[in-house]
Amino acid sequence: MSLPDFSLHRLQAARAEVAEAVHRTPLVRSEALSGRVGTPVYLKCENLQKTGSFKVRGALHRIRALSEDERPRGVITISAGNHAQAVAWAASAVGVASTVVMPEAASKTKALASQGYGAEVILHGNPAEAFQKAFELAEERNLTFVHPFDDEHVVAGHASCMLEVLEDLPDAATVVAPVGGGGLASGLAVAIEATAADVALWCVEPVGAAAMHQSFQEGHAIVRAMRLLLERTKLLAEPAGAAGLAAVLEGAVPHPRGPLVVLVSGGNVDAELLGRLLLADAG
Amino acid sequence: MSLPDFSLHRLQAARAEVAEAVHRTPLVRSEALSGRVGTPVYLKCENLQKTGSFKVRGALHRIRALSEDERPRGVITISAGNHAQAVAWAASAVGVASTVVMPEAASKTKALASQGYGAEVILHGNPAEAFQKAFELAEERNLTFVHPFDDEHVVAGHASCMLEVLEDLPDAATVVAPVGGGGLASGLAVAIEATAADVALWCVEPVGAAAMHQSFQEGHAIVRAMRLLLERTKLLAEPAGAAGLAAVLEGAVPHPRGPLVVLVSGGNVDAELLGRLLLADAG
Repeated sequence: MSLPDFSLHRLQAARAEVAEAVHRTPLVRSEALSGRVGTPVYLKCENLQKTGSFKVRGALHRIRALSEDERPRGVITISAGNHAQAVAWAASAVGVASTVVMPEAASKTKALASQGYGAEVILHGNPAEAFQKAFELAEERNLTFVHPFDDEHVVAGHASCMLEVLEDLPDAATVVAPVGGGGLASGLAVAIEATAADVALWCVEPVGAAAMHQSFQEGHAIVRAMRLLLERTKLLAEPAGAAGLAAVLEGAVPHPRGPLVVLVSGGNVDAELLGRLLLADAG
Repeated sequence: MSLPDFSLHRLQAARAEVAEAVHRTPLVRSEALSGRVGTPVYLKCENLQKTGSFKVRGALHRIRALSEDERPRGVITISAGNHAQAVAWAASAVGVASTVVMPEAASKTKALASQGYGAEVILHGNPAEAFQKAFELAEERNLTFVHPFDDEHVVAGHASCMLEVLEDLPDAATVVAPVGGGGLASGLAVAIEATAADVALWCVEPVGAAAMHQSFQEGHAIVRAMRLLLERTKLLAEPAGAAGLAAVLEGAVPHPRGPLVVLVSGGNVDAELLGRLLLADAG
């Protein structure tokens, strides 16, 4: 097994490739948040990205890397949310068929969104059963499995997000991002390494996304952060997407050097759930 | 009484002046909305403007135009919402004291926001009584009254919004904007006139803001448009701020020529109200 290539040259090539189809999301300075934190705060708005999250960066780069043999057969993945939409969208962008297996409890909105982007959506069992189903189908139909994070191309694609941040704000000193499986964290880290940028990277795991080892606080702080973003910057983040901001506001990032960049990783939250969260947090 | 000067030269000078302090808000293309409308749709995001609405453009230009005599005495205005915050912010930016009279029923959030921007806030009676109070105080304390729309400087300041749109999208064919008192509508119109741009301007009055003569539909359509913006573009508009989009989606702008620009005029909606609107619209 060869070591993955995360050289600057390779990451720049990945970025140039994904840049043809994904948004170069804005880096927005927030005076309200800067005032609260006591240092300049910028938001990297991946909630404004295609399909509403950063996931399209890695998914697109992965699917573009399919071999000539793999392309006509199509891809498959398992996801309850943003990765599903990203694979569905990226596959359509490249002209490849996609199948997405979702646990039955997945949000109907996200299932419909994935269908809307062109995927065949299969709802099946609990998350473990859905994973099993996806592997079976991959075998049976000879589809390429697109892993949500444990994949060199996914990581290299996600790295494009950090390259954009460093281009917009070369003196960024601290970056705080939510992490799930670790694909985003790895992508940000390899970009910092490759550019030799003097950036402290903090990765925060939202409660409820239990794929990694630490959770820094209760979910309530994430809802508060989501609400603050909405009220003060008019940007909708999903609760997990606001986890980076929550960590900063709760003091979980001690004495952050500024300028500080908070990555808002996604904005896909059902309107009804949002309504309930806003009312619950107010009460 | 002399005619106001809305020459291109003057509007450009106003724009250069306000640009020093207000945001050059993004013009964002939405694929989801373009697909629905059947022509390219762009959003001019004045909800991302300082204080959460376009109102700072005119307020700042007006307050900068105070005479040497007027500045040290300060300004006063009456508003239940966005104009109050805009005057409070703009006065602080220029270093002028401000007083804002609000009807007692005004939202506590907006009163606190105006205070936060540095205004003395006086809650008084119903809207008519508040207006009377503001005029009395202006006389008594020798303050300059900043009218929310019926003012040449306010109109020239608001015109900067359209100059930005035309710079970002020179072939914009249709612009749809919510209007209240008419300051924004006038500002957009004089900018189109001065630049001789081939743009059809549609102004839409949100229900509830009864200052102008027409209302095109029920408020429900505005809430739906607000929800669609939030779900598909992750941008928070206040219901009235989404009235332009509502008009387009409801077919009130027949056969719009594209590219079509929808002005999202503001994003100041209390989180609790938002929560209630989202749940009510879902039911």
